[in-house]
Amino acid sequence: MIIILNRDVTDTQIDEVRAFLEARGLGIHLSRGVETTILGAIGALDDQKAELEGQLAALTYVDRVVPISKPYKVVARQFRPQGTTIRVRDVEIGGSRICVMAGPCTIESEEMMIATATHVREAGAHILRGGAFKPSTSPYSFHGMGEDGLKLLAAARDATGMPIITEVMDPRDVELVCGYADILQVGTRNMTNFTLLREIGAARTPVMLKRGWASTIEEWLQAAEYIASRGNYDIILCERGIRTFETYTRNTFDINAIPALKSLSHLPIIADPAHGTGRWDLVTPVACGAVAAGADGVMVEVHPTPALALKDGAQSLTFANFTALMERLRAIVHAVGRDC
Amino acid sequence: MIIILNRDVTDTQIDEVRAFLEARGLGIHLSRGVETTILGAIGALDDQKAELEGQLAALTYVDRVVPISKPYKVVARQFRPQGTTIRVRDVEIGGSRICVMAGPCTIESEEMMIATATHVREAGAHILRGGAFKPSTSPYSFHGMGEDGLKLLAAARDATGMPIITEVMDPRDVELVCGYADILQVGTRNMTNFTLLREIGAARTPVMLKRGWASTIEEWLQAAEYIASRGNYDIILCERGIRTFETYTRNTFDINAIPALKSLSHLPIIADPAHGTGRWDLVTPVACGAVAAGADGVMVEVHPTPALALKDGAQSLTFANFTALMERLRAIVHAVGRDC
Amino acid sequence: MIIILNRDVTDTQIDEVRAFLEARGLGIHLSRGVETTILGAIGALDDQKAELEGQLAALTYVDRVVPISKPYKVVARQFRPQGTTIRVRDVEIGGSRICVMAGPCTIESEEMMIATATHVREAGAHILRGGAFKPSTSPYSFHGMGEDGLKLLAAARDATGMPIITEVMDPRDVELVCGYADILQVGTRNMTNFTLLREIGAARTPVMLKRGWASTIEEWLQAAEYIASRGNYDIILCERGIRTFETYTRNTFDINAIPALKSLSHLPIIADPAHGTGRWDLVTPVACGAVAAGADGVMVEVHPTPALALKDGAQSLTFANFTALMERLRAIVHAVGRDC
Amino acid sequence: MIIILNRDVTDTQIDEVRAFLEARGLGIHLSRGVETTILGAIGALDDQKAELEGQLAALTYVDRVVPISKPYKVVARQFRPQGTTIRVRDVEIGGSRICVMAGPCTIESEEMMIATATHVREAGAHILRGGAFKPSTSPYSFHGMGEDGLKLLAAARDATGMPIITEVMDPRDVELVCGYADILQVGTRNMTNFTLLREIGAARTPVMLKRGWASTIEEWLQAAEYIASRGNYDIILCERGIRTFETYTRNTFDINAIPALKSLSHLPIIADPAHGTGRWDLVTPVACGAVAAGADGVMVEVHPTPALALKDGAQSLTFANFTALMERLRAIVHAVGRDC
Repeated sequence: MIIILNRDVTDTQIDEVRAFLEARGLGIHLSRGVETTILGAIGALDDQKAELEGQLAALTYVDRVVPISKPYKVVARQFRPQGTTIRVRDVEIGGSRICVMAGPCTIESEEMMIATATHVREAGAHILRGGAFKPSTSPYSFHGMGEDGLKLLAAARDATGMPIITEVMDPRDVELVCGYADILQVGTRNMTNFTLLREIGAARTPVMLKRGWASTIEEWLQAAEYIASRGNYDIILCERGIRTFETYTRNTFDINAIPALKSLSHLPIIADPAHGTGRWDLVTPVACGAVAAGADGVMVEVHPTPALALKDGAQSLTFANFTALMERLRAIVHAVGRDC
Repeated sequence: MIIILNRDVTDTQIDEVRAFLEARGLGIHLSRGVETTILGAIGALDDQKAELEGQLAALTYVDRVVPISKPYKVVARQFRPQGTTIRVRDVEIGGSRICVMAGPCTIESEEMMIATATHVREAGAHILRGGAFKPSTSPYSFHGMGEDGLKLLAAARDATGMPIITEVMDPRDVELVCGYADILQVGTRNMTNFTLLREIGAARTPVMLKRGWASTIEEWLQAAEYIASRGNYDIILCERGIRTFETYTRNTFDINAIPALKSLSHLPIIADPAHGTGRWDLVTPVACGAVAAGADGVMVEVHPTPALALKDGAQSLTFANFTALMERLRAIVHAVGRDC
Repeated sequence: MIIILNRDVTDTQIDEVRAFLEARGLGIHLSRGVETTILGAIGALDDQKAELEGQLAALTYVDRVVPISKPYKVVARQFRPQGTTIRVRDVEIGGSRICVMAGPCTIESEEMMIATATHVREAGAHILRGGAFKPSTSPYSFHGMGEDGLKLLAAARDATGMPIITEVMDPRDVELVCGYADILQVGTRNMTNFTLLREIGAARTPVMLKRGWASTIEEWLQAAEYIASRGNYDIILCERGIRTFETYTRNTFDINAIPALKSLSHLPIIADPAHGTGRWDLVTPVACGAVAAGADGVMVEVHPTPALALKDGAQSLTFANFTALMERLRAIVHAVGRDC
Repeated sequence: MIIILNRDVTDTQIDEVRAFLEARGLGIHLSRGVETTILGAIGALDDQKAELEGQLAALTYVDRVVPISKPYKVVARQFRPQGTTIRVRDVEIGGSRICVMAGPCTIESEEMMIATATHVREAGAHILRGGAFKPSTSPYSFHGMGEDGLKLLAAARDATGMPIITEVMDPRDVELVCGYADILQVGTRNMTNFTLLREIGAARTPVMLKRGWASTIEEWLQAAEYIASRGNYDIILCERGIRTFETYTRNTFDINAIPALKSLSHLPIIADPAHGTGRWDLVTPVACGAVAAGADGVMVEVHPTPALALKDGAQSLTFANFTALMERLRAIVHAVGRDC
């Protein structure tokens, strides 16, 4: 790390900070100019870095501390330059084929689940989504069918052959959900729920980690590192929009994050244009944009009758709209030299 | 709620949406103008509202849905116009006295805990803080001493007579932490961890709910409602800064939120200028500003030697700085006609 | 507009606000419920609306004022449902062909200008960009060559046959710049410079209006309305990224804005992935994403040697990178059924 | 500045960047580690820095460029450690007395101007504000009375003895407005209007520079440097809130900026809680908070009847509310050891 000292730092203070760092085993490089004095410190261990940065910043004669190395390792591109492909039953995520995940926001009944699964399968989806445990801002809203919902989702998998993905919110439910799901989903509200991340890191079911709505790309990769550092390497990242001042859309889909992550990390990346926009009429163009920018797939919400959906009706596609999305998406998939 | 329809809506569509709402027991009020057609819908139950808004927005001929009533009730000012005072041992929060919570970010050892507790007590603090379970963006950082830390914190309470506050992150730890703490703390990363909120709602220990770093005031009050709706009414709100484009400070302390909450809710509100700024040199002025704007107290981080702190050194006060803060704060407290 | 009154509003207060509105010629619709009283007011003139909303919000018994109609007219989609195509010499913007604008950030010399123009023309660009008047955050930076730069730009047009676009910052320079440019550019820093917008509204040269870096889509369309309401209808919108908490990229390119604007307005929309990302390695994927999402074209910065560029080197493409971009872009253009 | 190179940088590349910097007269300091290679470059001239940073970032083997020195000089605290006091007629800004600027948002008529000026003067205000040239998001709104308004403002100065402050938007109006105003105001929408800043830098009338609603503290100080570098040193900074995701308030008043600026710059700082909140009921608490945090004064909007105000009614104080504000503010002013 680089430590920029105040203009009026004294020799004694420089000696103090130098001794402080050397006592922790770091190599020091001093560069003293007329206006600025800079210390380069090399060799901090991973578990020292955050701590050291805070400590140095606490010194009154330190102006700024600039970290040099990235705060994640296992999920960094260098760790696996060729990229990661995750296989779930016979579906690959992160390979040459684009992966489409579709299904209702929330599992509501057997009938709607089977109808939706059958339609999205026929229209070309690869993975079936459906929520059994639902986070809700309002304490008075529907919170999902729980294990009964998981059973309906598994039945829809049996009926269609599609692997299933579903959210887990409670660390105590991880084992239960792993008993049904092919992929666990961590929602945006739980990206910094380290208790949950730790439990999922100990599981052996692949996980899709949604970006926190106000988390930087670097923090997102640290959350992935949290899971990976506990042994679960099968991580899919999911960009789902960030919170900005714009109010016309529910979130601002961060398309920059897609190529940025492709360069920073080896993990596959899925786009969620439903949450990324919050408006069904924007889902298809943004899905196409995401794949054109390099996403490995998209996740969308589909409902037989969005105007009757228990959640997220405003951003859900009808069957006809989903079919239309698949058609437009296929053209883009081929244009980027991939398959679908 | 108010439903604004597209310009080119047909009579059949108006009949459809009207029938949809009437079937759910809502009263309808139609106002058809040349340019706009508006439907007022009155009488939705609390557990229908979010659902209905999403469903209506899914109709292609609906332009926008505008909610009228606030999505929280128990924590709203109308529910208890005189305001809430929470008593913790012999300390009151939300009454005429300003409450100062102080202590180290993280419990590191018995020695530093007792030294810090003794100092902040003498300088005038009312409640002792200290973290035993710590959320950390990096998986490689220190995560707290756990129950051993709670024991040291309780010992410091015994030594000084100050009630203690500490964070709980895992729903499975709520019972354990309630066995030690006088006030539970929910951190910014867990404001939308509904699993944890539900567990805390079932406890009978007072709780301080920090604002999510990118949560609106309305969402924050809904999180408080989440806890209250399960029976725990002793809730303190804590403004700790929000995430913005500004990079000089770690967060932007939202001083507007203080008088806004005083008008919207009856709950006490505490300011956390340490996280709200991320810089020790800004803590005291912002603490004073918060109390001048109506906060019921402040929480700050104090460490014998911030440059050796295991966490948050950059925003921790030395003993001398804390003493100076108390002096400046007292003048403000008296200026607003309160006591300290 | 809709006026939501406080719960405890009195009959006298309702009469007061009603009289207030009726005196201004508005029709009133009162809906009084147990919890809420709502007034619908219909018929405000365009030049009354903003004023009335502020005035009503000033009444202590008004909770909120909700505008119904959009605050722009001439640039709204309904005004010209078929969309607008702008013709500049023999190039069309907003038609079936995608338009590529390319060139250096800043005009530096005749040699680099001609070399760049020739290369981008050969690689397939349609319009040549180059800055003669440059806004700079630092007072000490280069501010452009001024009219000498305009002459070099015009010479490059003569040499290549490409229409030219260049920024104007000072209302006093509008006439001068119109003497050279085929398209005027309003930069992000000047989107709310109403003095400049007024002057450009009076000109008859087409204009490309960049989005303010923290302006909503609605405010952006109002700025366009500002120009159009003074008689200049040839307006191109340019999405160039908004300011968010993310620091890895210079801005967050708002891809949602592209389909949103296609639905709200009839004006053509160009994507600027150079400013939208601030990193040359992200320019091509985001350019492709923007066109896949419906943009009518892209603007990029090209420099013979970005590492010698006087401005924006970090986001400028080399000649080879621009050629590669064109190749990838063409595949996307065809996938969306357009030409290039 | 510090240049962090990619892991796989070659010796030839290092030589290239070193030669590049040395050719520009910079001293180089190379620190090559196993994981990272870092170059420290010392001695860049002010007018080279921004340029060099962009150029270096354009090199494919450069990971990041970290600027060390601040991009402003004349307005930095070091330039005048004792702070700046600006005298306008017999009022001082930035000295030991807190300065209150009050008056209507917009000058509407002689009667309201005199009535308001008289009231705020009696209640204790020091400087009279009033807008004659008004920026308006909507092209259809009222844009101010122009020079006629300036005459009414000057008449109110004659009647009350208070110096006057008013906004200038058009560089062509600077001379005209200087003929009337004691202090020029640059609005938030024009903080990056460099054409205007340049003109004001050439004037000799003091200026109050409002922060751009999405400008960082560093960019704000650079805008001040823009003015100062042209010879006008009498600059007052005005924090007026920044744009965030929060929608309950019009802006988020950035209280952190107040002590931050006191440490970074020697210029006086005024708080504008009216725009900073957008709600009249939050103006007084936030004004008190700002002064408690170190502001040198406040600016508020006062109107005889806010519900009839042509602009900003929602955030304007009635006469009674202004009197109440002054009373609460005085207590805070004394608590921070200043006068009013």
